[in-house]
Amino acid sequence: MKVVVLVGGVGGARFLVGLRSLLGAPEHEITAVVNTGDDVWMHGLRICPDLDSCMYTLGGGIDVERGWGRSGETWAVKEELAAYEAEPTWFGLGDRDIATHLVRTRMLRAGYPLSAVTEALCHRWQPGVRLLPMSDDRVETHVVVADGDGDGTKAIHFQEWWVKHRAGLPAKSFASVGAETATPAPGVVDAVLEADAVLIAPSNPVVSVNTILGVPGVRDALRKTEAGVVGLSPIVGGKPLRGMADACLAAIGVETSAEAVGRYYGSRKTTEKGVLDGWLVHTGDRSDVPGVAVRAVPLLMSDVDATAAMARAALELAGASIG
Amino acid sequence: MKVVVLVGGVGGARFLVGLRSLLGAPEHEITAVVNTGDDVWMHGLRICPDLDSCMYTLGGGIDVERGWGRSGETWAVKEELAAYEAEPTWFGLGDRDIATHLVRTRMLRAGYPLSAVTEALCHRWQPGVRLLPMSDDRVETHVVVADGDGDGTKAIHFQEWWVKHRAGLPAKSFASVGAETATPAPGVVDAVLEADAVLIAPSNPVVSVNTILGVPGVRDALRKTEAGVVGLSPIVGGKPLRGMADACLAAIGVETSAEAVGRYYGSRKTTEKGVLDGWLVHTGDRSDVPGVAVRAVPLLMSDVDATAAMARAALELAGASIG
Repeated sequence: MKVVVLVGGVGGARFLVGLRSLLGAPEHEITAVVNTGDDVWMHGLRICPDLDSCMYTLGGGIDVERGWGRSGETWAVKEELAAYEAEPTWFGLGDRDIATHLVRTRMLRAGYPLSAVTEALCHRWQPGVRLLPMSDDRVETHVVVADGDGDGTKAIHFQEWWVKHRAGLPAKSFASVGAETATPAPGVVDAVLEADAVLIAPSNPVVSVNTILGVPGVRDALRKTEAGVVGLSPIVGGKPLRGMADACLAAIGVETSAEAVGRYYGSRKTTEKGVLDGWLVHTGDRSDVPGVAVRAVPLLMSDVDATAAMARAALELAGASIG
Repeated sequence: MKVVVLVGGVGGARFLVGLRSLLGAPEHEITAVVNTGDDVWMHGLRICPDLDSCMYTLGGGIDVERGWGRSGETWAVKEELAAYEAEPTWFGLGDRDIATHLVRTRMLRAGYPLSAVTEALCHRWQPGVRLLPMSDDRVETHVVVADGDGDGTKAIHFQEWWVKHRAGLPAKSFASVGAETATPAPGVVDAVLEADAVLIAPSNPVVSVNTILGVPGVRDALRKTEAGVVGLSPIVGGKPLRGMADACLAAIGVETSAEAVGRYYGSRKTTEKGVLDGWLVHTGDRSDVPGVAVRAVPLLMSDVDATAAMARAALELAGASIG
């Protein structure tokens, strides 16, 4: 079975671990289309937080407690950078992590596309899932926030809003800079079109999933594929499973509820831009999404088995049951 | 008093510490013109070994035992880079050290010349000596070595020869790539012309001092200045004080002796390319350099006071005694 999953960072990575556990046999193939809208240049290094979260998590290198970055991490470079007072200090890169960014940055500067760089990095991590950046082009999520006390606004990089301000500045809107002219990375569209099931991980709907869908050609592929397309709600009991998805949803006027997110994704049968056939919500969450089959199962990803069960339910709903 | 010193890395840095100790009063000004021919791109970072050795040593950040790199150093990035099997492993960069290279590389890529970057880095280290790269242009020492068993040759970067091969491959010659079109960094020529004394530190004569002299305009400035020019021999009792200067001297057909190095630098009065008025050798070393005043004093740099005494003797020989 060929399964494609649209994923962001931490939540998406955990979901992939469950899916990989479910589809361990070699006849199955999992392709993750990973958000790169959070990518940022920092200290002259290209950082790809979501790709790295997926790679480290699947490759056994993640710091499990923190949920991001490398296990056994140290922070000598960060301390030294702070001592120079010449670099931003709000984005903390660990020493082990920096090695990844050094390899990536050197390959990018040598002319390799991000998809090739990601493949090279994965030689080490052997994630067992094909990790594809959504695009090899630079697409960056910027956040429009108030500038001063008046009506003025300014756009700041998503990471500045998310990490430096802990999503505490009210976001007026999000802009996906570069998206108009971006193309999906090699393999992305084909993977979706050839899939037996396409899943949308319980990732941030606005700045992860919608950013991927905003790369021209990706949304169309999801609407065109013969595979069933099923999303998993990242909202459980009216709250995000993790992260600050509520702040992002509020900014675009979408309620923080499983139902509202399901409607935000929309039916690919009865709406013009929708992508869903099925919508998986957490047990007890009500959700009515016109034109979409809704099912409720436990969605907590508390361990690998629970996550594998979620993946199994999603595949069933997509009509690609593995029995 | 204004003193200019031509320096390489470790030995030059130690000499500067002694000179700074001698000329501690604020009315004195020390300018070091630092070799950058050893500079190299590694892991996408610009490494300036001699500038950093000077900066760390004078700024109290050097690993004293090792003689290079940062004190309290850790090696997480290096281990991780090795795990990727995508980067050379023979050039070991410590974590703390990498922060320096990240700041430098980012500034260089932003368009700042190396001299401005060095000044910025020195805001942190407060070396008490003005550190000037010999040039803002890329000048790199390459070493011509045998390629295979036949007569073929190839040129490798100095660092590859020095660090990877521990100067063990017989060098046929050295090339200063980029030197022809390079210009001295801002301030270098003026400092030499306005100096009360110009000293040549007991650094590697071939790949440190001669590389600096090879930047068009520097040798002329040393020959033109009204200041006395005095060199300190890095060869003591027929052996280099540190490093592998003998391997470099052998490659260019110069004997490893204080006298031979003195003659290699030459008299600026009686030769066409020479730069010396005086030549300081170690007690007991005989040295006859035509047209150059030779004096013998202890040259071991065993501690700061011993090094300050060397500097005092050098200044005296240059006619710029501080009494």
